[in-house]
Amino acid sequence: MISLTLLLEQAGIAFSGTSIEISGLNTLGDANANELSFLQNKSYLRQLSETKAGAILVSEDVADKVPDGSIAVIVEEPYLALAKLSEAFKPKLIDVDAPEAVIGAGTVIAQGANVERGAVIGENCTILGGAYIGRGAVIGNNTIIHANASIYHDCKVGSDCIIHSSAVIGSDGFGFATTKLGTHVKIHQNGNVVVEDDVEIGASSTVDRAAFGTTWIKTGVRIDNLVQVGHNAIIGEYSVLVSQSGVAGSTELGRNVVFGGQTAAAGHLKIAPFTTFAARSGITHDVKESNKVYGGFPLMEQRQWLRLQAKIARLLKK
Amino acid sequence: MISLTLLLEQAGIAFSGTSIEISGLNTLGDANANELSFLQNKSYLRQLSETKAGAILVSEDVADKVPDGSIAVIVEEPYLALAKLSEAFKPKLIDVDAPEAVIGAGTVIAQGANVERGAVIGENCTILGGAYIGRGAVIGNNTIIHANASIYHDCKVGSDCIIHSSAVIGSDGFGFATTKLGTHVKIHQNGNVVVEDDVEIGASSTVDRAAFGTTWIKTGVRIDNLVQVGHNAIIGEYSVLVSQSGVAGSTELGRNVVFGGQTAAAGHLKIAPFTTFAARSGITHDVKESNKVYGGFPLMEQRQWLRLQAKIARLLKK
Amino acid sequence: MISLTLLLEQAGIAFSGTSIEISGLNTLGDANANELSFLQNKSYLRQLSETKAGAILVSEDVADKVPDGSIAVIVEEPYLALAKLSEAFKPKLIDVDAPEAVIGAGTVIAQGANVERGAVIGENCTILGGAYIGRGAVIGNNTIIHANASIYHDCKVGSDCIIHSSAVIGSDGFGFATTKLGTHVKIHQNGNVVVEDDVEIGASSTVDRAAFGTTWIKTGVRIDNLVQVGHNAIIGEYSVLVSQSGVAGSTELGRNVVFGGQTAAAGHLKIAPFTTFAARSGITHDVKESNKVYGGFPLMEQRQWLRLQAKIARLLKK
Repeated sequence: MISLTLLLEQAGIAFSGTSIEISGLNTLGDANANELSFLQNKSYLRQLSETKAGAILVSEDVADKVPDGSIAVIVEEPYLALAKLSEAFKPKLIDVDAPEAVIGAGTVIAQGANVERGAVIGENCTILGGAYIGRGAVIGNNTIIHANASIYHDCKVGSDCIIHSSAVIGSDGFGFATTKLGTHVKIHQNGNVVVEDDVEIGASSTVDRAAFGTTWIKTGVRIDNLVQVGHNAIIGEYSVLVSQSGVAGSTELGRNVVFGGQTAAAGHLKIAPFTTFAARSGITHDVKESNKVYGGFPLMEQRQWLRLQAKIARLLKK
Repeated sequence: MISLTLLLEQAGIAFSGTSIEISGLNTLGDANANELSFLQNKSYLRQLSETKAGAILVSEDVADKVPDGSIAVIVEEPYLALAKLSEAFKPKLIDVDAPEAVIGAGTVIAQGANVERGAVIGENCTILGGAYIGRGAVIGNNTIIHANASIYHDCKVGSDCIIHSSAVIGSDGFGFATTKLGTHVKIHQNGNVVVEDDVEIGASSTVDRAAFGTTWIKTGVRIDNLVQVGHNAIIGEYSVLVSQSGVAGSTELGRNVVFGGQTAAAGHLKIAPFTTFAARSGITHDVKESNKVYGGFPLMEQRQWLRLQAKIARLLKK
Repeated sequence: MISLTLLLEQAGIAFSGTSIEISGLNTLGDANANELSFLQNKSYLRQLSETKAGAILVSEDVADKVPDGSIAVIVEEPYLALAKLSEAFKPKLIDVDAPEAVIGAGTVIAQGANVERGAVIGENCTILGGAYIGRGAVIGNNTIIHANASIYHDCKVGSDCIIHSSAVIGSDGFGFATTKLGTHVKIHQNGNVVVEDDVEIGASSTVDRAAFGTTWIKTGVRIDNLVQVGHNAIIGEYSVLVSQSGVAGSTELGRNVVFGGQTAAAGHLKIAPFTTFAARSGITHDVKESNKVYGGFPLMEQRQWLRLQAKIARLLKK
């Protein structure tokens, strides 16, 4: 906990209002009475009216929309202010005062594996040489972490999972605020990743930790090699992401979604459950109808894409 | 070796026929008299008639097609049964009873490299810090394994090879059977990868081990960074895979094939030798003509693709 | 230094001219009086006329174009000769005679990190378990190298940088000469990578070292996960490369260029500053106009691409 006044002062942000104790940063939707939130743009005004945040970074023109019970912190660029403040809450990578790692019965930690203090590993796991388990990371039972896979601090991997070599769980989401001069200020990614049970994550795939809250890989998901999952994404139960596909930040897949190879979804989308995307689909809007096969970029039904390509090929003969 | 009766019983599969000793699972084409095979779908009926497999998982309607000398194991879903049975044959990741690793004369193993018991490394190799050589892996002479590269158990890398950092050789192929409820059962990938001599594999590239048999990277191949090679693929001599390209499972490239950046081939294809694919080609069918340059998605000759794009651009002016 | 005569003799290249001492190989533009250069094809004839190289590999037909003061080394295939000669200058991966690594005050090197002799690490850095810092690599102050990231020999990473897990800085560029028989001869990549200050490089991203000279990531650049940067590329200040994008060899981005996800640029291009490329753009020619948004493959302005796709969609209805 840090006082709001001190927090803002450290970041060089002028403020003369009432102070409260702040435990962290969060979105308007998820922040509690001890958290500081922000209004990034006016499309979130409805969320502003309903927020439970203790304090909110806002620009002057919307300061009167901050609900009673929340403190308005008026700044010129709320998103940039958020970035500057995020550093104060960044978690420790190493903590020499944390308890020694807890290792469950039957678990084999190969020589050359790196398990940080404060980690908790369940029973009958295999952690191979060069695998890294960060501070505060939690691993379930019967899980295999292959050589040179990295599980960052505070991330959770469930039971009966397999994480392949060079895979990375919990690297920082790609978040920064850009100043008027074109420089970038990092938004420290203070959330984590939760991988539920019975999940396999392929070699060199990457799952970024959330800015706030959690990037979520649900039960039974299968992720192939070289796949990207952005921060705050949610991958629904038993979904399948084939090699070199990508899910951008905050996009949410329902259960049993299939992404063919090199398919990609833009950020902040919702993809209906039981949808299939042919290889190299490009998804830039919400997909609402289940039980269909989509393809192409721009996206359409795959059978339409096939017909369209046949028509286009005929152009050549004209 | 395990008796067929016991093997099936362990997986909860009812069976009352003659038992034989089973040493492993294999495809219809490659299985021997001590191996159990499976008929995944009816397009393989010809292979069924010619198989040498000792026993075969089949659905009831084709049980009478199983050749004399093979035992029919009738199940509702042969592919799912295969997945359940595959666990019994999964190889050990670590074997404390294996002999100490054999290291050839002149080979330098940097401090911090992880070489498992049962590995064999030839002469004049350099194995850098954090590199991982799994149980039973075999490395030839004069080969460099860079920091944090991972060579899984039972894989072979030839002489005069260079494997760059974060590359992964032998991670599990992306294989699973999906149940009627939409859950997935892993097909344990009990094969390996063979990398022949004079091969270079780039940083963060991934070559998956075979489900059965071998994923094969032949002499003189050059693989750039972030390239995916799926299980059971064969990459012909002196082929070149440029960055972020991918070869899906069981696809076979002839010699001197060139994949431009971000090109991808679907699974189970044959690509003729001396073919070149421009960047971002999408290959979904066999390619039979050598000495041509292809491009586009759907695939065509590159010069056609260029003409087609010029025609399409004219649409804009209409 | 090695005498030109001996150098050529070792590679089996006939030569009877005057000898000089040679310190290395370089391009026509950058070579000095102690360096050997090469004329790869005739589009570089102007550079040949202006070179300061001490000696030059050329084919017989252009030998008379070699300027006074440079020695012409006549060979049938200059690029292949270059490849054969490059091995003589390859840098050491490990040097037991190098001084112990220098570690600045306040820097934490986690147990399990691998720091080679001859490395220099600044103050207040954090080097996590399994991270690799090669011989002669230099790291600035306040930089974080995450678990299992690899910084190759002779590369430089500035201050206030973050390098994520499985990222690779300094792997060999994808360079080889192909013989008439279709085999490949490696061009040893004897340059390095320089990452300036305030740069973040994402998980499993790869930045290749230069063949000669330097691959350059300038101040304030943000690179997401699974991004490829080829040898001798230059990424301008504050540029942003989103996940799964790629920059091929020798391409130069100005400052504040943005590559959307899965965008790729071919090699040897110049991209104007303050340009933005929508996701999956394919860039195959120089981009000269700043302050525009481009998209598509072939590349056009993004608003044109959107109009074109709308027109194409109408084809379906015909």
